[in-house]
Amino acid sequence: MLALMQDWPLVCHKIIDHAARQHPGREVVSRSVDGPVVRATYAQIRQAALQVAQTLQREGFAAGDRIATLAWNTGRHLEAWYGINGMGGVYHTLNPRLFPDQIAWIMNHAEDKALFVDLTFVPIVEKVAPQLPALRRIVVMTDDAHMPETGLANAVSWESWLAGADGDFAWVDIGEKDASGMCYTSGTTGDPKGVVYSHRSNVLHAMVSAMPDVMGIGARDVVMPVVPMFHANAWGLAQSAPMVGAKMVMPGGKMDGASIWELLDSEMVNVTAAVPTVWLMLLQHLEETGSALPHLQKVIIGGAACPRAMTEKFENDYDVEVIHAWGMTEMNPLGSLCTIKPEYAAADGAELLDVKQKQGHAPFGVEMKIVDDEENEMPWDGKTFGRLKVRGLAVASAYYGGAGAEQFDDDGWFDTGDVAHIDPHGYMQITDRSKDVIKSGGEWISSIDLENLAVGHPDVAEAAVIGLPHPKWDERPLLVVVPREGRSPSADDIIAFMDGKIAKWWMPDAIAFVDEIPHTATGKIQKTALRAQFADYKLST
Amino acid sequence: MLALMQDWPLVCHKIIDHAARQHPGREVVSRSVDGPVVRATYAQIRQAALQVAQTLQREGFAAGDRIATLAWNTGRHLEAWYGINGMGGVYHTLNPRLFPDQIAWIMNHAEDKALFVDLTFVPIVEKVAPQLPALRRIVVMTDDAHMPETGLANAVSWESWLAGADGDFAWVDIGEKDASGMCYTSGTTGDPKGVVYSHRSNVLHAMVSAMPDVMGIGARDVVMPVVPMFHANAWGLAQSAPMVGAKMVMPGGKMDGASIWELLDSEMVNVTAAVPTVWLMLLQHLEETGSALPHLQKVIIGGAACPRAMTEKFENDYDVEVIHAWGMTEMNPLGSLCTIKPEYAAADGAELLDVKQKQGHAPFGVEMKIVDDEENEMPWDGKTFGRLKVRGLAVASAYYGGAGAEQFDDDGWFDTGDVAHIDPHGYMQITDRSKDVIKSGGEWISSIDLENLAVGHPDVAEAAVIGLPHPKWDERPLLVVVPREGRSPSADDIIAFMDGKIAKWWMPDAIAFVDEIPHTATGKIQKTALRAQFADYKLST
Repeated sequence: MLALMQDWPLVCHKIIDHAARQHPGREVVSRSVDGPVVRATYAQIRQAALQVAQTLQREGFAAGDRIATLAWNTGRHLEAWYGINGMGGVYHTLNPRLFPDQIAWIMNHAEDKALFVDLTFVPIVEKVAPQLPALRRIVVMTDDAHMPETGLANAVSWESWLAGADGDFAWVDIGEKDASGMCYTSGTTGDPKGVVYSHRSNVLHAMVSAMPDVMGIGARDVVMPVVPMFHANAWGLAQSAPMVGAKMVMPGGKMDGASIWELLDSEMVNVTAAVPTVWLMLLQHLEETGSALPHLQKVIIGGAACPRAMTEKFENDYDVEVIHAWGMTEMNPLGSLCTIKPEYAAADGAELLDVKQKQGHAPFGVEMKIVDDEENEMPWDGKTFGRLKVRGLAVASAYYGGAGAEQFDDDGWFDTGDVAHIDPHGYMQITDRSKDVIKSGGEWISSIDLENLAVGHPDVAEAAVIGLPHPKWDERPLLVVVPREGRSPSADDIIAFMDGKIAKWWMPDAIAFVDEIPHTATGKIQKTALRAQFADYKLST
Repeated sequence: MLALMQDWPLVCHKIIDHAARQHPGREVVSRSVDGPVVRATYAQIRQAALQVAQTLQREGFAAGDRIATLAWNTGRHLEAWYGINGMGGVYHTLNPRLFPDQIAWIMNHAEDKALFVDLTFVPIVEKVAPQLPALRRIVVMTDDAHMPETGLANAVSWESWLAGADGDFAWVDIGEKDASGMCYTSGTTGDPKGVVYSHRSNVLHAMVSAMPDVMGIGARDVVMPVVPMFHANAWGLAQSAPMVGAKMVMPGGKMDGASIWELLDSEMVNVTAAVPTVWLMLLQHLEETGSALPHLQKVIIGGAACPRAMTEKFENDYDVEVIHAWGMTEMNPLGSLCTIKPEYAAADGAELLDVKQKQGHAPFGVEMKIVDDEENEMPWDGKTFGRLKVRGLAVASAYYGGAGAEQFDDDGWFDTGDVAHIDPHGYMQITDRSKDVIKSGGEWISSIDLENLAVGHPDVAEAAVIGLPHPKWDERPLLVVVPREGRSPSADDIIAFMDGKIAKWWMPDAIAFVDEIPHTATGKIQKTALRAQFADYKLST
């Protein structure tokens, strides 16, 4: 029996329509790439988005076309997204931190037909443009005065490109399961894989993420997404903030501690979100200048595990609540947030910090399970770990073009590639990447746990753990260490330091000292390269 | 271009699955109809729902079947809902306050095949059962010990009905646009009209209603829906509370001030919701006993306009935030809530009370407009009023069987039958029912505003305003007054009292004194009867 309810598709333009109708005067404040801090309201953002949509359509772009953006978080980037979506197009965010050849590969794979680019990144585009035959329009997101001289064909400034459009445009009618956005994951191996978001997944994800135990944002919040829009949808904030009418503060290209603090302070930001690296820079700035964070209430930290000392500093020294989070590009991206359920409401001090080391619990719409190599579900006891699989209202069902099909099983579960345990209250903690976990005698050893422990030694600058083949145990851990400058710890020193802090059988079989550990373009340890480097290393048996 | 995201239908059983997985130990505390306060967890509620679904299926009920409930808010009622939905059935809530003949009419119209009924209402069922040939199972929601002697065929106690089921059952696979629930509106004229909710509308409505500027509930809240599940879905709380893992407190059949206060206090409820009548009883109880509300933080008041004095008392005397709300059975039911946007953040005292007299703003997923008789949109200036039309993710597209088709227009807007104005910040205030508004010389006069003003006169017990035909102005207002016992105000008294508080041309042309004003079964003024009563009344010109 069918219900008798209206057909009201969950499409992205309804978000900006709602913001402009219910919160017309709410500001989006941006540190522009040109220089000054600029202000627009949601009513103005919508108007500009209409102009973007109108101009795209006039130039012959149509529903389903992929339109790339290579840009910082600014009001203009928002206008571009809503404009692209509003004419039925698919915004495709490019990560400027990738190598130019990767960017070209991704743009060709997605068949991008146009590109919105910030001034900062014009040199990248000049480098890759010859490899992009399908790209027929480049809009440099600046005014005429700042438009650089460039040999790029089809390049035009944002200002003059929009000048002819009055915004008298009706959003294109599209379905909620149509593509709204694309983002490629940059794995450590193989070609990047494209995730294709739907309008529905973006809208549902925004609804979930605004809820009190998730990001918990409303019209009276001032939200600064430092996490870039090109980094997994700015964790949904580009959609959830307008949906609830929150004021937005967009940091543009300046992520240094002083610039971030300036905006937090002058715009009275009370909620912000980014990866740990950004917060390291901010905390260092605060210490150097003796500044405080009087307005900030909540910082959402994800993208990489949040160090315990960082949580401690924010909460104890600056009275800012840390919400540890985990997600993936394939999850739109939120998977879990470490907000506090009643079961942990009484925790404080070290116990609370223990809880906050976990990546948190799944909100409604995210299903999780942990499994062993035979796909048996593991118990939620906070100890047993397994491969983390997810299913939900905003989880990818495939990669663009069919890559990585082995990560999607027949029951609709996506294999995250992470290894985790989950406690009885539903709090998940990532313990490793599944390709990095060390399988010793049928049991798993977390490389990340060992690395985190080893870097606690005062003479260790960086540490990486890989599994090496072992005749009896299948694999055993090798700890690779970069000593701090001027220090030369011995293997015995480090083993003595680790002893008693882990199970005996987790102790690395050997320690190798190196000058440098290889990293990917996005700063992750490149364990494949490390494994190649130590391919001939023999563990003593 | 289709997106590549998982197909994860928005169906109600996913709510209870999530609650049981992520909040297994969270309690649902009920004042049982049998007597004592009883406790169940979400894990137990889900288990019982599985048993309900299993037993329904074993008895031959199938997806799409309407299963009625005539019951108070209790954990068992929740189990019935999730069980009915989990086997693909449609819960159909019956309002016990209707006349038995209306109940029988509604049950036959919906073709209810089974009924869950509380002890309290068995006598009603005994009365109407002979008129219900399709009804083939009656489950009395009690244990064997309390099972009454009854001549009802097919009646069985909840306890023995479920005894044979172990709950080893897989939720039936249904689509998100399939019917999940039914509720009939009881208008003042004509037959009741059936609204058919979808799984999707229930889930989306719950997501929206949990958001911070709507009801704003999370896992650490203790929520008591006093508003009945048979009154427009308990305003979504039966779905939103489990979705976010909030503890629920269910008041059963006792709505008197002492019983409500007892649960608020002993269970440390911090969020509650009901119609003004309930709160009048509570406030009276508080005054009589000198009790306080130390735990309660937020009370959501809707179903009828919240009197200003009530808001004032809750906020000033008891430090409880009042959230005025408006909705309709046809809207699943939330339409607007008067939470505070930044534009009103500085308001306090009388100014804040003025804001809180408004029914509030529409959350994401509810579109509103006000129109005149020619369907022209009226401005959002906080003064101009028009017929309120809505559209959205949880708004009815039709009534069951096609009744009331004139309320749905071709562009998908539903005519609420209310007249309202909306201010520049999006705050809507109901000023009248469109059939009651008085159309004088092309302008509209709000009958409700006049009534509210007239009852402010110390000698007036109740007041009703209707429009009477007028040769020059089309219609002019007649004020019908029931004097307070022992008082006999004159028409001049009342007109003098009203003078200066309304526009001159709003002043009623005449005042009629009566002993009684006719009411509907649900306590609303029956203006149709009043108009019939005064059909021959002649206004002097």
